[in-house]
Amino acid sequence: MLIECVPNFSEGRNLARIDAIEQAISAVPGVLLLHRTSDPDHNRTVITFAGGREAVIEGAVRAADKAAQLIDLNQHRGVHPRVGALDVLPFIPLEGATIELCADLSRQAAARIWNELGIPVYFYQAAASRPDRVQLEDVRRGQFEYLREAVLFEESKQPDLGGPSLHPTAGAVIAGARKILIAYNINLKTADLELAKFIAKRIRASSGGLPGVKALGLPLETRGLVQVSMNLTDFEVTPPHVVYAEVTRLAASRGVQVAESELIGLMPRRAVEMAAGHLLKLSNFDSQCIIENRIQTLLSQAHSVS
Amino acid sequence: MLIECVPNFSEGRNLARIDAIEQAISAVPGVLLLHRTSDPDHNRTVITFAGGREAVIEGAVRAADKAAQLIDLNQHRGVHPRVGALDVLPFIPLEGATIELCADLSRQAAARIWNELGIPVYFYQAAASRPDRVQLEDVRRGQFEYLREAVLFEESKQPDLGGPSLHPTAGAVIAGARKILIAYNINLKTADLELAKFIAKRIRASSGGLPGVKALGLPLETRGLVQVSMNLTDFEVTPPHVVYAEVTRLAASRGVQVAESELIGLMPRRAVEMAAGHLLKLSNFDSQCIIENRIQTLLSQAHSVS
Repeated sequence: MLIECVPNFSEGRNLARIDAIEQAISAVPGVLLLHRTSDPDHNRTVITFAGGREAVIEGAVRAADKAAQLIDLNQHRGVHPRVGALDVLPFIPLEGATIELCADLSRQAAARIWNELGIPVYFYQAAASRPDRVQLEDVRRGQFEYLREAVLFEESKQPDLGGPSLHPTAGAVIAGARKILIAYNINLKTADLELAKFIAKRIRASSGGLPGVKALGLPLETRGLVQVSMNLTDFEVTPPHVVYAEVTRLAASRGVQVAESELIGLMPRRAVEMAAGHLLKLSNFDSQCIIENRIQTLLSQAHSVS
Repeated sequence: MLIECVPNFSEGRNLARIDAIEQAISAVPGVLLLHRTSDPDHNRTVITFAGGREAVIEGAVRAADKAAQLIDLNQHRGVHPRVGALDVLPFIPLEGATIELCADLSRQAAARIWNELGIPVYFYQAAASRPDRVQLEDVRRGQFEYLREAVLFEESKQPDLGGPSLHPTAGAVIAGARKILIAYNINLKTADLELAKFIAKRIRASSGGLPGVKALGLPLETRGLVQVSMNLTDFEVTPPHVVYAEVTRLAASRGVQVAESELIGLMPRRAVEMAAGHLLKLSNFDSQCIIENRIQTLLSQAHSVS
């Protein structure tokens, strides 16, 4: 069984600190460090790692500990909202794991983060304790500066675990479980920001667009392009190739071409297979038409028989 | 280490015989039976299996033995050319294997097929002993009926191993080593066979088209469509998405659309990844951007260290 964990840290500039956090995670036996990306404007780092149940919990706790040692939110500035040094801590099911199991792992990690480190925890997504805490943006509204005051006066702002005060420098962790998310951007050959915003609005789920799509129109000033920046939160319902076709169509209707698209981080193999099968118009194509997948299936069947 | 073996048998109609041949192969410990396809007009069956060195040799020898027991070429009729009951026996490198190793395996299998079964062997492709035996069509010219006479009178027609006569009912085996081949067809929304032939000629390597592409224009009479039927013999040089784009372009220039494409058998994962990366215009995309590939790489590194 394999679980993915994608902690977001409120540090995207100081390489020594980011390296130290990464090393704290990768030192855990059984942890596979898959990816790391930092953004200086956001002043934020996202680390992707995977492992079995014990490994991902241990990695998450050590990450929270190291981040709390190195990051003081009172000194932190960046364009991305945050409430914690380790800000968001999602657990994601990969092979043989379920979202329910991942919600349970997030609660186990949270218990240790509060008991051992004294950092309170909010639960979101599949681990949320209340409907108004399902969405990350709802939990994080007002950020560290507001939330550390609000918890003292408003019952409804209390952390799900620990508190009542936030940690004075490390804030709070927002832990939970969710499906795999694909961070996917499409860059357009124009500097017309209004077009990117128009397309983002047309495709985002919240304004009646494609299910599971969050989208923003952004300028890429150094390149003279604009970007439709997206999170695909349910790629099996709305995969990248569907978004790509729709953005291409909407841009073409205004006479604009797609320059390129970008993947931020990693994408699941299934999304790659869906794109190839669709874009090559392959009839009767499925995952088992791929040599390596067929071999893996047969080997895992042989294992489970013997 | 994993080697693929794709024997072609001169039987595509009698299910009991085809099943018996398949069972002879799959009974070998360590053999993974990946795919099987039969065509009654061709009167021919292609079985794809994989395994380690010993397993694929054993599978190949048992396949040759069972085919010789069940198939009499004197009784065999079909539209596809053939010289043997087990007609063609290619070994293909998958994980950790080389084409040179596969050529060597084909010689080891051939030695057993001649010594134990009395069936002579011609070597082709990477195992060929002479330039005029590299291409399969050159070795097979004239088929069983001509070759069994020719070997008696022409030195140049002698088998590479065994002989001088062919086996009276099982003919000869053509063994060798080659890269993975993708059998890929594109169906056009027209009954205009001349268009399919025109496109096939434009894209095939032998008439100056795309490298590694063999192509024919064929009618699909029951569907009222025509097909560009292809073998891609070097998919890393000319992958399916390049062929798809070129066939689409050539068809569109005559006002015809692509109905769909078809994969015959299996395709390697790398071709799927190349197609998705290209067709989504993904910048900086490679195999390690896929979660499962990254995990496999890390796990195999961990294995090789410990």
